[in-house]
Amino acid sequence: MSRKKAQLSMAEIKRHSGTSPKKTRKRGIPTTRRLMELAVAEAFTGMRVNHGGPFGAAIVRNGQVVATAHNEVIKTNDPTAHAEILAIRRASAKLKTFDLSACEIYATCEPCPMCLAAILWARIPCVYYGCTRQDAEGIGFRDSLFYDIMGGMKTAGILKISRLGRRECLKALREWIRKTDRTPY
Amino acid sequence: MSRKKAQLSMAEIKRHSGTSPKKTRKRGIPTTRRLMELAVAEAFTGMRVNHGGPFGAAIVRNGQVVATAHNEVIKTNDPTAHAEILAIRRASAKLKTFDLSACEIYATCEPCPMCLAAILWARIPCVYYGCTRQDAEGIGFRDSLFYDIMGGMKTAGILKISRLGRRECLKALREWIRKTDRTPY
Repeated sequence: MSRKKAQLSMAEIKRHSGTSPKKTRKRGIPTTRRLMELAVAEAFTGMRVNHGGPFGAAIVRNGQVVATAHNEVIKTNDPTAHAEILAIRRASAKLKTFDLSACEIYATCEPCPMCLAAILWARIPCVYYGCTRQDAEGIGFRDSLFYDIMGGMKTAGILKISRLGRRECLKALREWIRKTDRTPY
Repeated sequence: MSRKKAQLSMAEIKRHSGTSPKKTRKRGIPTTRRLMELAVAEAFTGMRVNHGGPFGAAIVRNGQVVATAHNEVIKTNDPTAHAEILAIRRASAKLKTFDLSACEIYATCEPCPMCLAAILWARIPCVYYGCTRQDAEGIGFRDSLFYDIMGGMKTAGILKISRLGRRECLKALREWIRKTDRTPY
């Protein structure tokens, strides 16, 4: 990530962060930090209006903000409504593609496994994050445990996973590979 | 998971699977397999109408189908629109809660890390899956690689992750823990 001057417009900074452009556009603050400020502003906004946990994210392409979001699990009753997921969904809708490989994402906390895998599926090649999974654990979130489960540890007592009906399910995969008009993603 | 008789209504089986209830309600087929059939039907439907990859899911509570879904990444341009994610979002909306701990999920393929973590966030304690991550890899999907990345391997060349601005981001986490009207999730 280069530290060249931000290409954010004043209007965008104001709209996304809710702070004065003059205050945000401080001299000497690298572009990346100013972009992270947008994610931080989202985190505070979302928490204070009781939309969800204290987490925010921003997706940027060529220094231009494409989408920002904050956690909305409480507001929407959707356990997948993490800031990064919502930012990805909004950016994809705006850019009309599931391929965000020209983008980078700023997240106020280390993405949980759900969000990190979503970033991978979206092909976003560059992630900046503020707090760590341990910081999140410190305020009651289970990101760190979920990472352990991803690595094959500690599923006992939390999750029972069983294989069932592979033969029938494989038929769909075989039809996909034979399908001439399929779109790879 | 008990193998007691299915509590699916005829209408539900017909609506979700698109097959005749008489054909679906075969004698001697365990409940779990009949529920997986709903996920398989979704996988075929979604693939054939070009909504996305050949993957389906169903969420069930006390033997009653709460939601079904198929992959819609292509249709919606949303890289997070996997069958399990959509099924969780629909089930949460229907049940008006982010807590799906009374549910189980049937997925035609082993959930990718994004979907597995979503299942954990949703507190779904029981997963049945058909194909494996290696089967998915065999038709061009990167689930298996993403699991390796979750485990701390092979990020080089795919994803650059950097920490930035932890001090500012931590302020939001500290405000959350002091917040008296917060909803844990």
